[in-house]
Amino acid sequence: MNGTGNLMDFLDEPFPDVSTYEDFHTIDWLREKSRDTDRHRKITTKSKESYWELIKSLLDAWSGWVVMLLIGMLTGTLAGVIDLAVDWMTDLKEGVCLSAFYYSHEQCCWTSNETTFDDRDKCPQWQKWAELMTGHSEGAGAYVLNYFLYVLWALLFSFLAVSLVRVFAPYACGSGIPEIKTILSGFIIRGYLGKWTLLIKTVTLVLAVSSGLSLGKEGPLVHVACCCGNLFCSLFSKYSKNEGKRREVLSAAAAAGVSVAFGAPIGGVLFSLEEVSYYFPLKTLWRSFFAALVAAFTLRAINPFGNSRLVLFYVEYHTPWRRKTTLLGKYPVLEVIVITGITAVLAFPNPYTRRSTSELISELFNDCGALESSQLCDYVNNPNMSRPVDDIPDRPAGPGVYSALWQLALALIFKIVITIFTFGMKIPSGLFIPSMAVGAIAGRIVGIAVEQMAYHHHDWIIFKNWCRPGADCVTPGLYAMVGAAACLGGVTRMTVSLVVIMFELTGGLEYIVPLMAAAVTSKWVADAFGKEGIYESHIQLNGYPYLDVRDEFTHRTLATDVMRPRRSEPPLAVLTQDSTTVEDVETLIKDTDYNGFPVVVSRESERLIGFVQRRELTVAIKTARQKQDGVVSSSVVYFTEDNPQVAEACDPQPLKLRRILNLSPFTVTDHTPMETVVDIFRKLGLRQCLVTRSGRLLGIITKKDVLRHMAQMMNQDPESIMFN
Amino acid sequence: MNGTGNLMDFLDEPFPDVSTYEDFHTIDWLREKSRDTDRHRKITTKSKESYWELIKSLLDAWSGWVVMLLIGMLTGTLAGVIDLAVDWMTDLKEGVCLSAFYYSHEQCCWTSNETTFDDRDKCPQWQKWAELMTGHSEGAGAYVLNYFLYVLWALLFSFLAVSLVRVFAPYACGSGIPEIKTILSGFIIRGYLGKWTLLIKTVTLVLAVSSGLSLGKEGPLVHVACCCGNLFCSLFSKYSKNEGKRREVLSAAAAAGVSVAFGAPIGGVLFSLEEVSYYFPLKTLWRSFFAALVAAFTLRAINPFGNSRLVLFYVEYHTPWRRKTTLLGKYPVLEVIVITGITAVLAFPNPYTRRSTSELISELFNDCGALESSQLCDYVNNPNMSRPVDDIPDRPAGPGVYSALWQLALALIFKIVITIFTFGMKIPSGLFIPSMAVGAIAGRIVGIAVEQMAYHHHDWIIFKNWCRPGADCVTPGLYAMVGAAACLGGVTRMTVSLVVIMFELTGGLEYIVPLMAAAVTSKWVADAFGKEGIYESHIQLNGYPYLDVRDEFTHRTLATDVMRPRRSEPPLAVLTQDSTTVEDVETLIKDTDYNGFPVVVSRESERLIGFVQRRELTVAIKTARQKQDGVVSSSVVYFTEDNPQVAEACDPQPLKLRRILNLSPFTVTDHTPMETVVDIFRKLGLRQCLVTRSGRLLGIITKKDVLRHMAQMMNQDPESIMFN
Repeated sequence: MNGTGNLMDFLDEPFPDVSTYEDFHTIDWLREKSRDTDRHRKITTKSKESYWELIKSLLDAWSGWVVMLLIGMLTGTLAGVIDLAVDWMTDLKEGVCLSAFYYSHEQCCWTSNETTFDDRDKCPQWQKWAELMTGHSEGAGAYVLNYFLYVLWALLFSFLAVSLVRVFAPYACGSGIPEIKTILSGFIIRGYLGKWTLLIKTVTLVLAVSSGLSLGKEGPLVHVACCCGNLFCSLFSKYSKNEGKRREVLSAAAAAGVSVAFGAPIGGVLFSLEEVSYYFPLKTLWRSFFAALVAAFTLRAINPFGNSRLVLFYVEYHTPWRRKTTLLGKYPVLEVIVITGITAVLAFPNPYTRRSTSELISELFNDCGALESSQLCDYVNNPNMSRPVDDIPDRPAGPGVYSALWQLALALIFKIVITIFTFGMKIPSGLFIPSMAVGAIAGRIVGIAVEQMAYHHHDWIIFKNWCRPGADCVTPGLYAMVGAAACLGGVTRMTVSLVVIMFELTGGLEYIVPLMAAAVTSKWVADAFGKEGIYESHIQLNGYPYLDVRDEFTHRTLATDVMRPRRSEPPLAVLTQDSTTVEDVETLIKDTDYNGFPVVVSRESERLIGFVQRRELTVAIKTARQKQDGVVSSSVVYFTEDNPQVAEACDPQPLKLRRILNLSPFTVTDHTPMETVVDIFRKLGLRQCLVTRSGRLLGIITKKDVLRHMAQMMNQDPESIMFN
Repeated sequence: MNGTGNLMDFLDEPFPDVSTYEDFHTIDWLREKSRDTDRHRKITTKSKESYWELIKSLLDAWSGWVVMLLIGMLTGTLAGVIDLAVDWMTDLKEGVCLSAFYYSHEQCCWTSNETTFDDRDKCPQWQKWAELMTGHSEGAGAYVLNYFLYVLWALLFSFLAVSLVRVFAPYACGSGIPEIKTILSGFIIRGYLGKWTLLIKTVTLVLAVSSGLSLGKEGPLVHVACCCGNLFCSLFSKYSKNEGKRREVLSAAAAAGVSVAFGAPIGGVLFSLEEVSYYFPLKTLWRSFFAALVAAFTLRAINPFGNSRLVLFYVEYHTPWRRKTTLLGKYPVLEVIVITGITAVLAFPNPYTRRSTSELISELFNDCGALESSQLCDYVNNPNMSRPVDDIPDRPAGPGVYSALWQLALALIFKIVITIFTFGMKIPSGLFIPSMAVGAIAGRIVGIAVEQMAYHHHDWIIFKNWCRPGADCVTPGLYAMVGAAACLGGVTRMTVSLVVIMFELTGGLEYIVPLMAAAVTSKWVADAFGKEGIYESHIQLNGYPYLDVRDEFTHRTLATDVMRPRRSEPPLAVLTQDSTTVEDVETLIKDTDYNGFPVVVSRESERLIGFVQRRELTVAIKTARQKQDGVVSSSVVYFTEDNPQVAEACDPQPLKLRRILNLSPFTVTDHTPMETVVDIFRKLGLRQCLVTRSGRLLGIITKKDVLRHMAQMMNQDPESIMFN
């Protein structure tokens, strides 16, 4: 069929030098999908011709899994290297290993034969700076020197991090998740997932986390994983040349990122599905699953701490004590230096903030066994009692618990404040672990309070039925776990993926019911304040064109209210199928900046026959002017199927452009409710949609128009939507 | 705006007696969604008028959560009751409790004071039938009597089950999951989720499982949960009057069903998402999560065995030994009786098939500790060794293990065969546990083989590096677990939900990597034999109009190749906007059975202006004939916006029907690739789509046309698609 042939000509991309989309523009999902199907069909047809083509087609079919394998392996390796480097550099702030300078404190003392099991973190090979430089390990002088060097190292690390980001890869800052969400929804941000960003983000992430700032490394790890995904896409033309297919790979890469950030492969897949991805077919689910598996496996093979549950909190950072109110946002390097300084100065003296937050969370999650030496477990023991370790009844709190409570309460307030300031700085920074730490502290405080109430007032009605005196009724560690889940859920609005990550992280499968209840409750409460999670808010702040699947559009407007041109505006810029000259087209391209033009039968009938892309039109005319004899400014451009009949011999040669005409543009009628239009844009991933009435072209609606209309309906500034 | 007003008239459903869809028809998702938005808008507008309306609007907003709560509670309760009843009736085949006839064997002996811890299942209150009737508990006579009564009870139960299903609720047979998948995709099967089906399915499920047939109760529990969901939908007009919203509730109910079937709430949500649901917005994810949580909680409150992991395998049934080859499909009652007879006769003598499969799977999953008395743990112990219970090194197998291996191998073959015959009978039957049992047996056999090889040949290269003599290298129980996951994955093609269900079921969070590897591998291997899982195959067998999101359509056809009318067929039945008479319309309705008719400007221009539903047209004309004076056969039907100008006074009064005209019918051009059309049908849930070229109406594509075309392209019989 003739029409088919022409359509396929168009899909074949006759102009290889047309890069498909411009930077900061939205892709057309339907077009990408149709291009991929076409490519696939070609390979299938060819594969019947020879064995070599058959092998090539099999390789093509398996390339998806190969990419996943590569992504999983590289992501796992990078995460392992980051973990080891962070461990080493965090310890470097305190001291150095004499037997091998590249050992962290733990590695140093593990390799030492002189340590006993009880005192694993003290060994002669590991020397604090003061001890190494002055020979004294105790006393005020040594303390001040250690303190000074701790702050100095922190400032050095954070200065390096912020400078590297500024100079080499500005896209490496932040967590990257809002941008990745936007990219996955079909937006183009060139360089955001580039090799340079990958390298700088990996290095600066280590520096930022080691400096002790109140930030996590999970979000950045997702960004790093997506950079890996993008990197491996370029190996296969199937993915590098198709923005739609590329996004399938990136969705899976995001899953691998979360998988290594938490050691939670299933949680990673669900996070990608629930939180990050836009177009997530079942095939991507399986591939994400595979990538997450490989990544977790690789990390486990590299990272020596991956086998113990308590060390699944990989992130190391410290939090400060005092409120900070200056506004330094305009001077990013200074901002980072000042906040690092404050953080380091205040974190050192306090036992709870000096240690890494992973250890803090571990301690808060843990129940007090008999061997526990933590201040939080300073309970008054009943001397007459000898029970197995794991089944200690509720006891009255000792002085250590009360002082710990007081310190935790202070740490809670300041952690909330400093995290707010830290999570916007121009360095790689994640929010998961800081949020979890806040929730865990609050949960533990509540837990201890309830425990003591239950112990001292076990005749109260609320305790009476389920708590006998001398029984182990209240587990403060569980309260901390639930608190961490609730806080993280409130910040990100995750539910299912949150619970799965929490129990993959803690191994607490039996606490699934409280965790689920916490997730649902925190979502309800947070939704009462506003429907958007932290990532959606960031997307909105940046004005990205993100059509959230969660926003329900319930207004009564119709397509005719949204389409352009509006009544006061000049008529729509259209081409006719057989009466526009080359010059007319060139003028239209020069005078407007639209991404494409509808083609109609004639200006009188206005019946739509197709849509032509600006870029393809530009290139086609330029090529024709150069290569095709007789094409001049007065040549008529034809989009018709039949050969044009040239009236007189002296007329200039016509230019046939049907091959670049999209004969199946998406149309809706002017009476279509906007709700349906929004749904179509969301589900089919359109860039634009033409509006007709009784077959006549009336106007056009672009994704930007839809987003601006939605913003207007929600009483927001429509100009906040900046990109197309 | 006038157009808006008219459109809204149409959405207001002016004819309340028009039931929206017919049985065995497909719903129009876009229309349902738009109706719901409209309802929502009305409530929001009204809520500003008075406090009472505000309260009503709040109740409406929360009704989704209330429905979820009710579904969770009823599903959990029913599952608990089913579990208790199955326990009692399964034991009733062997004997009765003297202290209270309604106690199961376990309950009977638990309440007895005369049992010791070691011999929990022997107590004087529990008497086998032979003992009760003859006084003798030992000897060949007692054995034969017990055997006879066991078979008799089994036949009675299965006869009752199949008769109840046949007489009262034919829809109660099978697992129900294929039909639920189809219903969730937008198909109407009246009565499939009715109250009667709920009642009969619950009762017959207990009977079928108790009879000892090789079937599980997970699939049927999903059906039961969906019936509960449908039941509670009828309480709220928001759900009962909107087929789209109803399906959101049903998706969540399916999650609750799996949640109680396995005690796996997260797995239930993922199962609903990955396997069953079609339209699954994030809101439904959160609600499913809540429903699954409530259901699991209720079940735990009711079911006394829910707290121990080993009893999470709720299902009880027995499997036979011998191959069965007769074809009894035409006589469903006889088929059930015969298979039950064979199953019961052969299951009784053998120790592995006589016990319930939940116990069998538990035993196969478990490692051999020192206290284990199972035949599978009859290893030759090293007398010189005294170690803690959980860390026993690999040992040589004793004679018990070898005879167990032999019995397991036989059980494996026959279990595979009998499950194939059982899973199509006209009684409620699930496939999860039978598949898992097959996989677990195979896995355990392989596990023991590897263990013995590693013990006897620990110098072989494959064992050398990781298995020292005297170490515990191989855990046959883990092989069984992985085997069960792999087998279930091969049958259903689940991946993520499978792994989550497996570790919620076993608590084996640390085995996530082998489980994931098994899931991915079994999917690959099974996909090599055919892309469809068991549920998709059943849907296809039944000819349901299910547009699978997994099938990729990669053929080169265009909308014009699929649309009707074809070249040889008469032209499309259309109405004109202002020149069709009432009689013409009535003739058209009588002569055709189309669900709706496009309306065009005139037969000459063929420009499309809208689409009118057959049902609404029928009712509108009938009503007008009865109530509106002057409407006669020669009256002209008008779909125009302006008032018709009656030319002469003697002309009959016109009939205005614009209010039933859908002004935003979905259109594609004739050049649109079918791939895009399939995508649009899938993602927007269309019933039909009109085909135009340059604004002229050319034809129509219905969901049935799409499905038939897809079947044809895959070289299947297009006539196998039976419904619209």
